Amino acid sequence: RRRDPRYDLLFEPIRIGPKVMKNRFYQVPQCTGAGHPRPGSNAGHRAVKAEGGWGGLSTESCSIHPEVNQSTSTNTTMWDEGDVINHRHMVDEVHKWGALAGVELGAGGVKDNLWSRYVAAAFDRFPSGGTPKVYTYAATEEDIARIMQMYEDAARRAKDAGFDILYIHGAAGVFPVHALSRHFNRRTDGYGGSFENRARFWVEALERLKKVAGDDCAVATRISIDDLAGPWGLELRDEGLAFVEYITKLGLVDMWDIIIGGSGEDMWGEDSGPSRFYKSNHQSPWNAEVKRIAKVPVVGVGRFTEPDEMVRVIRSGQLDIIGAARPSIADPWLPRKIDEGRVEDICECIGCNACVSRFNLNNMIICTQNPTALEEYRRGWHPERFEPTPNPEMVLVVGAGPSGLECARVLGKRGYEVHLVEAKEQLGGHLRDVVRLPGLAEWGRVYDYRESQIARMPNVTVMRGTGLVTAEDILDYGARRVVLATGARWAGNGLGASGPDTIPGIDAALDHFVTPEQFFAGKAIGERVVVLDSDGYFMAISIAEVLADQGKQVTLVTHLETVAPMTALTLEGYNLRRMLREKGIKERTGHWVDKVDKAGNGVEVVLYDRYRDGSRRTTTPQTGVYPRRLGDAVEILDCDSVILCTSREAKTELYDGVMALKPRWQDAGLETVVRSGDCLAPRYLADAIFDGHRIAREFESVNPERPKAIIRERQIWGHETFPKLGDHVV
Amino acid sequence: RRRDPRYDLLFEPIRIGPKVMKNRFYQVPQCTGAGHPRPGSNAGHRAVKAEGGWGGLSTESCSIHPEVNQSTSTNTTMWDEGDVINHRHMVDEVHKWGALAGVELGAGGVKDNLWSRYVAAAFDRFPSGGTPKVYTYAATEEDIARIMQMYEDAARRAKDAGFDILYIHGAAGVFPVHALSRHFNRRTDGYGGSFENRARFWVEALERLKKVAGDDCAVATRISIDDLAGPWGLELRDEGLAFVEYITKLGLVDMWDIIIGGSGEDMWGEDSGPSRFYKSNHQSPWNAEVKRIAKVPVVGVGRFTEPDEMVRVIRSGQLDIIGAARPSIADPWLPRKIDEGRVEDICECIGCNACVSRFNLNNMIICTQNPTALEEYRRGWHPERFEPTPNPEMVLVVGAGPSGLECARVLGKRGYEVHLVEAKEQLGGHLRDVVRLPGLAEWGRVYDYRESQIARMPNVTVMRGTGLVTAEDILDYGARRVVLATGARWAGNGLGASGPDTIPGIDAALDHFVTPEQFFAGKAIGERVVVLDSDGYFMAISIAEVLADQGKQVTLVTHLETVAPMTALTLEGYNLRRMLREKGIKERTGHWVDKVDKAGNGVEVVLYDRYRDGSRRTTTPQTGVYPRRLGDAVEILDCDSVILCTSREAKTELYDGVMALKPRWQDAGLETVVRSGDCLAPRYLADAIFDGHRIAREFESVNPERPKAIIRERQIWGHETFPKLGDHVV
Ligand SMILES: Cc1cc2nc3c(=O)[nH]c(=O)nc-3n(C[C@H](O)[C@H](O)[C@H](O)COP(=O)(O)O)c2cc1C
Ligand SMILES: Cc1cc2nc3c(=O)[nH]c(=O)nc-3n(C[C@H](O)[C@H](O)[C@H](O)COP(=O)(O)O)c2cc1C
Ligand SMILES: Nc1ncnc2c1ncn2[C@@H]1O[C@H](COP(=O)(O)OP(=O)(O)O)[C@@H](O)[C@H]1O
Ligand SMILES: Nc1ncnc2c1ncn2[C@@H]1O[C@H](COP(=O)(O)OP(=O)(O)O)[C@@H](O)[C@H]1O
Ligand code: SF4
Ligand code: SF4
Repeated sequence: RRRDPRYDLLFEPIRIGPKVMKNRFYQVPQCTGAGHPRPGSNAGHRAVKAEGGWGGLSTESCSIHPEVNQSTSTNTTMWDEGDVINHRHMVDEVHKWGALAGVELGAGGVKDNLWSRYVAAAFDRFPSGGTPKVYTYAATEEDIARIMQMYEDAARRAKDAGFDILYIHGAAGVFPVHALSRHFNRRTDGYGGSFENRARFWVEALERLKKVAGDDCAVATRISIDDLAGPWGLELRDEGLAFVEYITKLGLVDMWDIIIGGSGEDMWGEDSGPSRFYKSNHQSPWNAEVKRIAKVPVVGVGRFTEPDEMVRVIRSGQLDIIGAARPSIADPWLPRKIDEGRVEDICECIGCNACVSRFNLNNMIICTQNPTALEEYRRGWHPERFEPTPNPEMVLVVGAGPSGLECARVLGKRGYEVHLVEAKEQLGGHLRDVVRLPGLAEWGRVYDYRESQIARMPNVTVMRGTGLVTAEDILDYGARRVVLATGARWAGNGLGASGPDTIPGIDAALDHFVTPEQFFAGKAIGERVVVLDSDGYFMAISIAEVLADQGKQVTLVTHLETVAPMTALTLEGYNLRRMLREKGIKERTGHWVDKVDKAGNGVEVVLYDRYRDGSRRTTTPQTGVYPRRLGDAVEILDCDSVILCTSREAKTELYDGVMALKPRWQDAGLETVVRSGDCLAPRYLADAIFDGHRIAREFESVNPERPKAIIRERQIWGHETFPKLGDHVV
Repeated sequence: RRRDPRYDLLFEPIRIGPKVMKNRFYQVPQCTGAGHPRPGSNAGHRAVKAEGGWGGLSTESCSIHPEVNQSTSTNTTMWDEGDVINHRHMVDEVHKWGALAGVELGAGGVKDNLWSRYVAAAFDRFPSGGTPKVYTYAATEEDIARIMQMYEDAARRAKDAGFDILYIHGAAGVFPVHALSRHFNRRTDGYGGSFENRARFWVEALERLKKVAGDDCAVATRISIDDLAGPWGLELRDEGLAFVEYITKLGLVDMWDIIIGGSGEDMWGEDSGPSRFYKSNHQSPWNAEVKRIAKVPVVGVGRFTEPDEMVRVIRSGQLDIIGAARPSIADPWLPRKIDEGRVEDICECIGCNACVSRFNLNNMIICTQNPTALEEYRRGWHPERFEPTPNPEMVLVVGAGPSGLECARVLGKRGYEVHLVEAKEQLGGHLRDVVRLPGLAEWGRVYDYRESQIARMPNVTVMRGTGLVTAEDILDYGARRVVLATGARWAGNGLGASGPDTIPGIDAALDHFVTPEQFFAGKAIGERVVVLDSDGYFMAISIAEVLADQGKQVTLVTHLETVAPMTALTLEGYNLRRMLREKGIKERTGHWVDKVDKAGNGVEVVLYDRYRDGSRRTTTPQTGVYPRRLGDAVEILDCDSVILCTSREAKTELYDGVMALKPRWQDAGLETVVRSGDCLAPRYLADAIFDGHRIAREFESVNPERPKAIIRERQIWGHETFPKLGDHVV
């Protein structure tokens, strides 16, 4: 198949300074979480995208020097010759596919250099607002000269490593941003005061890059063009565009990379907008105006996944280059699929920000849609290449939730004859309910993509609406190998906040208690509602929103210290908190439930403070005595309905049933039964999909429930890395 | 000098299974935060302690397999041959000094294997209570057999690496603990139900270790002997001692390592008790009872720093071996100093748990008292050895707070002629006030130690009570090189929560406002008090406690999501929260101050919710318009006094003054002025001390304000590590 001519525009080369990029697809700066300690993982991740047709790929924010390191999470560095070697490996992989490699040189910010213990210079001294509290010192002009040298040295190392585009990072509260800002920069010397003075730091840094670049490399800058803080920040139509004009006049950049959002910890989500709040191309009101005045190519972002929209964006003069972070993670082969005329194979990002959540947990990113993300090197996975099965036998997969669908898809790609059986009419499992929650419709791409992929595979047969498959059915089926992906359900007994404890008085079989499944099924809910959350992610807060929208009085109770802490990691938390305030949803954090009693027509939920007991041990060891003074204060919430978002439980019935019939397996020709996803242990969506994928990849190993060895990237005392990929692990 | 005979007992060898430990000092399992990626740092840290006389040293909890990894922070692993190589390096270093090396083999718990993405088996399936939410699956008997094999394989690797003592880790919610617990273990098979069944997992794991150990290694177990949860947990006098008896009868361990505290995230602080709540030997009521019935040596812990107490503990039959984690970090040479008859040189742990806080931030530990901790390898620092100065000239150090004291001490050790000048009569700087806060008296050891060390150095002269040294004084002094360690003060204008913003209406010169310094100086405080905290550590909550104890009505307001989040990292937070409830201190989190107005005889503090604005962007770019709907709800607190714990500001006056006189330096013979600690940028106590130490170590470098290169331990693509120690960095 060939490319649809209406997408030709996307494949027109474009000049960026002395370089030519082969098309209009550019992977903007994006952390992997692998950072400086894991060169193989970084290179593997970018290499697959270069192969997938991205014309240019940038590193993540790459620290120019240990002092002015701007991240407490694991990031890449350009500090020394060791870094050059590691980056060069990545750049070489990218160049193999004719793509350009960019490096986003980052410095500054009010972050703790926990690892190096450097105290950092800042633009003006002021403390961080977070934990740990960080203080910087105000850089003198001499310090700034030194910082300029750091930019230059890092740029030289980058050039040495082979990079084509040298970037000044100018977003998320780094040096140039604080310098330019009327709000943050209160200096009175040559770097403060007038617009030109405030722009000077950025200008000088670009000049250093230009000097290093010469005629060999392009120079670019990323800029957050509006802080979204109104008069308290940089604004597009005030100094944002003025800065673009100024730099244009000076001729200092060969490409603009435009985003929005300020320096605060709650601002990343305005750029990497979760689909819950922002749809595709949500940054257009800002980046389009930059393009109007820029004289060099402009890259912009906005979770672009659809080629028609991309064409519109370029044709309308909004942007020259389609920038993407998340769409390139979700589908590293996105450009190539457009080029090869198979747009329907694109795996679209769902905007869940699971990727970001892992970075925020100081780990390698993962992706809900693309389970091979960051597994390219350490597991040797390729998003589009699958080892053909040595034995194309029939495999039965029971349950077509996200995990079963992915397992079936990958088994299919590998050439197995897959029979996928789903009790319900619709494929997608629990996600079919989730997409009905406010803002989460795009998550449906998970099953849409897999369903449509499978539909095109002749060796995958889907049986839907079968009702629950039984253990006997499995034995009758005649499959030698079976995958169970039967999922999980929400607990109906209050399990979740504290080990194996359930809550007295709670029973989802009774009228006043409602599990999420019962909520979706339409169980009646009264006017006064208590939502119990010991899950901490989207379910409780989303149901609370729905009920508040229905005019009910809603109180969200959680044993956790903050509401829905997982959503802070996915960048949804801050706007969700705003939503709670707007909609008048009450919150009780750090409290949990002693018991629930009947009271009148409703129930009373008896809450206790998690720290109701004394601050010092009050007794020496005594059997049967709690060694603190226990306070007896409780708080009683009267309500009509209690929503139970406490925790989930694996649906193990089918597995247990089949295991009970083990003596009959041999006669039935059954050899292995493998659990995939939530039915082994409930987990985040991305992890359930990952599990289905992994099992299908490793289906011939001794026990596919157990992962094969992973390459560890770490220093070995005088030796190479162990184990080797594919080594057997117990 | 020779050892005081009253301490001879501490140096009696003791048999542990087939091994003999040379004395009674044992470094119990203790994380470094260096973990598996940094073999050099781990080895360096233990080597210095072995040299310092510890008879035995254990690893931290060392993971036996990626599936049953029990930590989300960076820890050590015993997964493969690469790990064997790295551990062997550490063991060899320890053996050089005739010490024994132990390995604490850890497995289980309800933790997310974020890195490997394994889903873990658990004893019984139940979810974690934290973020990210983690679910495990209930191990079958077959799974348990596999886990036993993991213990065996890991033990075999450990033996291979040269370890002398093989441990089963049995604290902090790992497998054996959940297995033994009536509360957590609800199994109905051979591993659940009766006491023997619940003990079976632990017994079998020990048997595997015994099998591997043969006659070559000792086998030990660490056990948390009481969950401190009363009837809801394992209790000493119930099944705790019963377990000890049972294992004793089976003859399975050669040494007991006893601690207390349960599985919850808030329980580590009951073992590694902060001095704020627990003094030395706080675990004696528990461990003494184990010793009464044990037939093999018993190790116990309790922040032991005093040799007289150690002797009492052993002589009284409470313990056989003095276990220590923090005292060994604070003074790696503690045993040797006792042995060499220089007890007064011991640097005592202050129980601040700064060490733990960095581990909790997924970083290498640091130590307030010992700035060389974890710098042994990467900076080449030794706690007791100092490079003699090439030029024993006079150096002037101004300010004898923690940073100046440490700088003077190390310059003194190096042979400089140090003149330390302090404005006040007392040395210790801001710490002199801090120690007056509830529970923090032991922090005074920081200045007591340094003051007494310096007093014994003939080349260090202390001038106290001089009043403020001026820039002119410095020029007159005749020193070629000067260190300024003039510290910081609390801001009087509300700076701290949000970049460079101060709070309208706040001014510490007025009666209603009180900075911490003014509080300590006795400024009058009314009955209704608002404590503003944008610092997040101990100051605000401690002052709130003092005022509540005086019977005042106290409300603590913080822009942070939780009260004093830094104290959660130091393990003080949970008991501090209990304290707040006990003492009726009100809390308002997630709020900050619009302004403070006069009202009647007092003031009104106008609070706003940090998320008072709308959840979606409501406008496209417009100059002067905040792009969200801003709610106008405020909350007014009427009060008499406002305590200002918002942030600190460096005292830069003296530095600025001296710099202004630069033209006169040459005539005055002045060449360099170096800032140390809080006067460059405020920071945590440990970091201010570290800075003084580092500057003194690197005093001859081009600019001692800037650290020298650090060895980075990371994978290099086919190459060795760069840069080399001591390389010049810009
Ligand atoms: C996982 C992840 C890591 C990111 N890391 C960086 C970074 O290091 N530097 C940077 O300037 N932007 C970073 N971003 C922001 C992206 O470059 C981009 O501006 C944003 O995600 C919006 O583009 P998208 O909608 O295509 O994802 C990151 C985004 C994601 C999702
Ligand atoms: C930084 C640090 C790390 C620790 N890591 C471990 C560990 O890995 N395994 C363990 O069993 N205990 C660990 N502990 C607990 C100690 O072994 C010890 O029981 C506790 O700190 C009390 O002893 P101490 O008062 O001498 O510090 C750690 C303690 C500290 C301070
Ligand atoms: N016994 C069964 N027979 C057929 N389908 C089943 C059976 N049990 C569960 N299912 C289906 O399995 C799917 C599980 O999906 P889900 O709960 O989303 O799990 P996961 O997230 O692990 O994919 C659901 O669509 C459910 O209808
Ligand atoms: N001009 C000065 N002359 C002499 N001593 C000073 C002067 N300025 C500050 N000091 C002293 O310096 C010390 C600073 O200590 P501190 O604030 O604890 O800082 P740090 O934590 O950096 O050690 C205080 O004891 C203070 O009295
Ligand atoms: S994790 Fe979610 S938001 Fe991130 S790239 Fe994948 S699908 Fe998109
Ligand atoms: S950081 Fe504090 S608690 Fe930890 S060892 Fe050092 S002095 Fe002791």
